[in-house]
Amino acid sequence: MADRSSAILLIRCPDAKGLVAGVSGFLYEHGANILSTDEHRDDETGQFLMRVEWDLEDFGLDREALARAFDSAVARRFDMQWRVAYSQEPVRVALFVSKYLHCLSDLLHRRREGELRADIRMVISNHRDAEAIAGFYGVPFHYIPTAPALKAEAERRQLALLEEERAGLIVLARYMQVLSPEFVARYPARIINVHHSFLPAFSGARPYHAAFERGVKLIGATAHYVTDVLDDGPIIEQEVVRVSHRDQLADMIEKGRDAERLALARAVRWHTEHRILIDGRKTVVFV
Amino acid sequence: MADRSSAILLIRCPDAKGLVAGVSGFLYEHGANILSTDEHRDDETGQFLMRVEWDLEDFGLDREALARAFDSAVARRFDMQWRVAYSQEPVRVALFVSKYLHCLSDLLHRRREGELRADIRMVISNHRDAEAIAGFYGVPFHYIPTAPALKAEAERRQLALLEEERAGLIVLARYMQVLSPEFVARYPARIINVHHSFLPAFSGARPYHAAFERGVKLIGATAHYVTDVLDDGPIIEQEVVRVSHRDQLADMIEKGRDAERLALARAVRWHTEHRILIDGRKTVVFV
Amino acid sequence: MADRSSAILLIRCPDAKGLVAGVSGFLYEHGANILSTDEHRDDETGQFLMRVEWDLEDFGLDREALARAFDSAVARRFDMQWRVAYSQEPVRVALFVSKYLHCLSDLLHRRREGELRADIRMVISNHRDAEAIAGFYGVPFHYIPTAPALKAEAERRQLALLEEERAGLIVLARYMQVLSPEFVARYPARIINVHHSFLPAFSGARPYHAAFERGVKLIGATAHYVTDVLDDGPIIEQEVVRVSHRDQLADMIEKGRDAERLALARAVRWHTEHRILIDGRKTVVFV
Amino acid sequence: MADRSSAILLIRCPDAKGLVAGVSGFLYEHGANILSTDEHRDDETGQFLMRVEWDLEDFGLDREALARAFDSAVARRFDMQWRVAYSQEPVRVALFVSKYLHCLSDLLHRRREGELRADIRMVISNHRDAEAIAGFYGVPFHYIPTAPALKAEAERRQLALLEEERAGLIVLARYMQVLSPEFVARYPARIINVHHSFLPAFSGARPYHAAFERGVKLIGATAHYVTDVLDDGPIIEQEVVRVSHRDQLADMIEKGRDAERLALARAVRWHTEHRILIDGRKTVVFV
Repeated sequence: MADRSSAILLIRCPDAKGLVAGVSGFLYEHGANILSTDEHRDDETGQFLMRVEWDLEDFGLDREALARAFDSAVARRFDMQWRVAYSQEPVRVALFVSKYLHCLSDLLHRRREGELRADIRMVISNHRDAEAIAGFYGVPFHYIPTAPALKAEAERRQLALLEEERAGLIVLARYMQVLSPEFVARYPARIINVHHSFLPAFSGARPYHAAFERGVKLIGATAHYVTDVLDDGPIIEQEVVRVSHRDQLADMIEKGRDAERLALARAVRWHTEHRILIDGRKTVVFV
Repeated sequence: MADRSSAILLIRCPDAKGLVAGVSGFLYEHGANILSTDEHRDDETGQFLMRVEWDLEDFGLDREALARAFDSAVARRFDMQWRVAYSQEPVRVALFVSKYLHCLSDLLHRRREGELRADIRMVISNHRDAEAIAGFYGVPFHYIPTAPALKAEAERRQLALLEEERAGLIVLARYMQVLSPEFVARYPARIINVHHSFLPAFSGARPYHAAFERGVKLIGATAHYVTDVLDDGPIIEQEVVRVSHRDQLADMIEKGRDAERLALARAVRWHTEHRILIDGRKTVVFV
Repeated sequence: MADRSSAILLIRCPDAKGLVAGVSGFLYEHGANILSTDEHRDDETGQFLMRVEWDLEDFGLDREALARAFDSAVARRFDMQWRVAYSQEPVRVALFVSKYLHCLSDLLHRRREGELRADIRMVISNHRDAEAIAGFYGVPFHYIPTAPALKAEAERRQLALLEEERAGLIVLARYMQVLSPEFVARYPARIINVHHSFLPAFSGARPYHAAFERGVKLIGATAHYVTDVLDDGPIIEQEVVRVSHRDQLADMIEKGRDAERLALARAVRWHTEHRILIDGRKTVVFV
Repeated sequence: MADRSSAILLIRCPDAKGLVAGVSGFLYEHGANILSTDEHRDDETGQFLMRVEWDLEDFGLDREALARAFDSAVARRFDMQWRVAYSQEPVRVALFVSKYLHCLSDLLHRRREGELRADIRMVISNHRDAEAIAGFYGVPFHYIPTAPALKAEAERRQLALLEEERAGLIVLARYMQVLSPEFVARYPARIINVHHSFLPAFSGARPYHAAFERGVKLIGATAHYVTDVLDDGPIIEQEVVRVSHRDQLADMIEKGRDAERLALARAVRWHTEHRILIDGRKTVVFV
C-alpha cells in the first residue's frame, strides 16, 4: 500500500442520516477508487468521525478542486470539520530526545526499514548523546540546552527550527523537559509523548520507581498527545509488560523500554498514516 | 446496543467503484439510521466484504420489501451475495459437548449474564456429565451415545433435533467426536469448533501432549469453522497462554482451558452478532 | 502433583549466609524428598523469603515434631518467621459476593474441575442472586443483608460463620461492601479482593466509568490482599484486556469481566497452594 | 546486579535426596553469599537442574580450587554434569545476519544500553547491508559470501573467525543460510536462531506467507537452539502479535519483526546470563 498514490479524507461532524451516502456518493462521482473506509459514531457525544482513503489514479479532482467541491457539495451540509492528506506528502517529523535513546533509535531504524512513512527532519536534544545515532541515520541534529535560565530561549530556537522545516508532528521520544503552554498551543494534537507508565497510573516523575514501590505485576507505557495538563492528553496507545517480585527497579526500567518502544512506534505510525482523530478527551484510532 | 431493534446487512462481491455509495445511498433513501459500517477489500482475491447495521426505528422497508428493493436496486448491479439478519431474532444455537465442561459452563454463564445474545436451544452430548449444568441453566439436554456402531444413528438423531429446533449455529464446545462430511455439509460455516492448540500447530489428537513434548513456551486455543478437513477450517479467533518448564502436562491442560474459553466465547459472540464473513479459507471479523 | 501428600514450609527472615544450607540440610536429615524450592532475596529490605515443598512419604517427623525440631535447629538461629502447611488440609474458603456472579461462578466451576484445591465452605452475600449457583455446586449459601443500619450486625454474623467453619481465606468475588477495619484486622493477608481496574489507576468506585472517560486503550483487573486502606493492599495478580474507541462502557464492563475472572482465579489458586508471601507492601508469588 | 562480581554454578544430574543440601552446604562452607538459587525437577525424565549465583566477595575458592573441591565434595556423589561461569567474563558472541537488520540493530543497541551483558566480538554476514550499523556500534564486520559453490569455504572462514575470537555463542539474527551439521556439531546448545513463526507451526521457508494464507489471528516468533534438524531445536522463547484480516502480508512481516526482536533479545540475554539449561528436547529457563 505504501507506494500507491492515495488521498485520505478525515471528517468530524455531528451524526446525521446520509453522511456515509453523502461522502461516498461524492467520491464515486469523481471517480475515486476507495481503498478503505472507517467510521465511528460516538454514542456519548453524538459525533461522527470518518476516514476514507482512495486511490488517486482515476480521481478527477486536484487538491484545490477537491477542497472546493467537497466543501460545497458535502461538508457544509453536515457541518463538517475535515482535512485531506496525501500519501505522497509524508508528515514532516521532529524528534525530541534527552539521554535515553531506545525510542529514538527504534524510530530511526523503523524509518530506514520503511515501516514508518514519515519524513524525519531533525533530532532536537538538550544533551549530546543522540548526536551520533542521528548522524548515522542521516538526520540533522540540533543541540539546544534547556537549563532553567535558558528555557525560554530554548523554546524560541526550537520553534524557529520547527517552522523553518515546516514540521507537522513533534515526537517526544523520552524528552525529559516540560514544554510551555505557549509551545503546546502551537501544535495542538501534533505533539506525541511517551510516558513510561500505564496512565493514569503513575503520572508525573519517576513512574518506574512508583510502580516498583507499589508492587504492581504489570508495568506499562502510554503514548499520548500533549496538552497543557501533564500526562493528561488523549491516549493513543498503551502497552504492558509482565513483571514479578524478581524484578528489581533496574529490571523494570529495562523491561519497560520494550513497552515504550512499541507504544510510541505504533502511535507515530498511526499519526503519520492519518489514522487518528481526536474525539473530546479521547482518540479514535482507525486501524 | 443490545436492545435497539436493528438490522444487519452482510455483503460479499467483487470489488468495484461505487459499492459503498450504492449501499449507503440505498439505505439513506429508505430512512436508515446507520449504527455502524465495516468493510474489507481483499487485495489478493479482489473481493469486497461489508457489514452495515442500522436502527430499524425510522426504516421504511419490512423484510420482504427490503429484500426485493435491495436486490433490484443494488445487489444485482454489483453481483452481490448478501443476507440480512435482525437483532430481534437471535441465532438459535445447539451446543455439543463431551466430558470437559469448562467451555460449556462458560457459554451458558455468559448467556445468562447477557454477554451472549444467542438463543441456546439445546445441549447435545455423548456423555451424561453435562446434564446437570444444562438443567441448571434451563437448557434442554439430549444424551446421544456415539459408540462406533451407533455413529450413523447418532448423527440422524442429532440432525433431527437440529432441524426440529431450527438451529442456525452448532458449537462444538469440546465435543470429542468427528462429524461426518455429510453432517458438516449441512451446516456450512455454521459449525464452530474450539481446538485446544494454536493451529496449525498440533492439529489432531492430544495437542497438549504434543505441545508438552515439544517444549513450547506458549500454548494456545483456536476457534474455527468446521470443514471436511480436520482442524483446517477458517480460523475465527486464537488465544495463547504463557507456560514454562515448571508446567507439567496437567498444568498445561489447566492453563489451556482459559485460552479455550476465551477463544470460543469470542467466536460464538461474533458469529451470533453477525460479525464474521468467510473470505476463501479465511474469516473477516468486523469488531 | 495434586495427590501427593506433601508439606510446604514458608519462611521469612533477614538474609544471611547459610540459610538455604540450613533449611535444606535440616530437611535432608529427616528424609525429606524435596519437590520444589523457591527463594527470594529482597535487595531493598534485606529480607529473605523461601518456600519449600517436600513429599511426606519418607519424612521422619510428624507435625509437632517438625515444629519443635525446625524451631530449635534452624528457625531461632536465623530469626525466622515461618509456618508449615499440608497439602492434605486444603485451605477453607468463604466466598463473598454481591450481584455480579461471573467471578463466583468461575471459582465454583474451577473447584469442581479440580483446578482449585480449596475447600469452599460457604457463599455469603448481601443479595439472593448467588443462592441458586451456590446450591448447584453444593456450597451452603448465607444471605446476610448489609443495609447501613444492619452493617455492624452483618459483620457479627459473618464473623460467627467464618469462625464456626474455621475459614482460612475470605475471597471477595465482586463483593460491593467495604469491610470494617476490625473485620480486616481479624484476617490479615487472608482476604483477597478483586478490583475491576488496573491498580493504582482507577481505585475506588466505578472504575470502568472512569476508564471509559479517560479513554484508556487497555483495561484491567487487580487481585490484592485487603488492608485498612481501600484498594491499597499488596497486589497479587493483574490482568489486562485491550479496548478501543469502539468499546462503549457496557463493552468495557463485559470485557473487563474476563480480566477479573483470570486475576482472581490465579490469586486464589496461588494462595491456596501457599505460594504467596507478604514482603512489606508487596507480594512474593512463587510460581 | 550487573556490577557485582559473581559466580554461577549450573548443574544437571539424576534427582536424589540431599542435592540442595549438598550444594548449598558446600557453598556455605566456603563463605559464599548466595544471590539466587533456582532448581527444577523434571518429573518425566527424573533429572534435577539447578542454577546458583553467589557473590564472590567473601568466597574462599579461586577457579581451580572451586572446580577441584566441588568435584570431589559434591559432583561425583550425585553424578553431576556441571559448569561454573563468572559474571566478570561476559560470553563472547558472534552475530550472523543476512539482509534484514532489525534483530541485529536491536541487539547492538541493547548491548550499548547495558541491557545485554555480552561481549559482541563480530558480525558475520553473507551480504554487505549490515556493515554500516556494525561499524556504528564499533563491532568488526566480516563479509563472507555463501553462494552454493562457496558454502564449504564460507563455513571454514566462519569457523576460523569464531575460534580466533573464542566465541562462546553464535546468534543467527535473521541469517538466511542453513548451517552444515558439522558446523552445528561444533557449537552444541551454543547457536541461537530466531525463526519467524510460532514453532512448530510454519517451520521452514516463508512462514509469514504460510501464516497469511492460513488466515491465523496471531503470528509469532521463536528463539531456539540450533540442532541438526531444521527449526527443531530446544525452544528458548516465543512471542506473538495479534493480526486481523486487515493485515496484508507486508503488514504481517512488519508486525512480526516486533515479535522476532523481543524473542531473540530475551533468549540472548538469558543465555549470556547463564539462565538456560538443556533438558532433553526442551529448555529450562531460570528467570
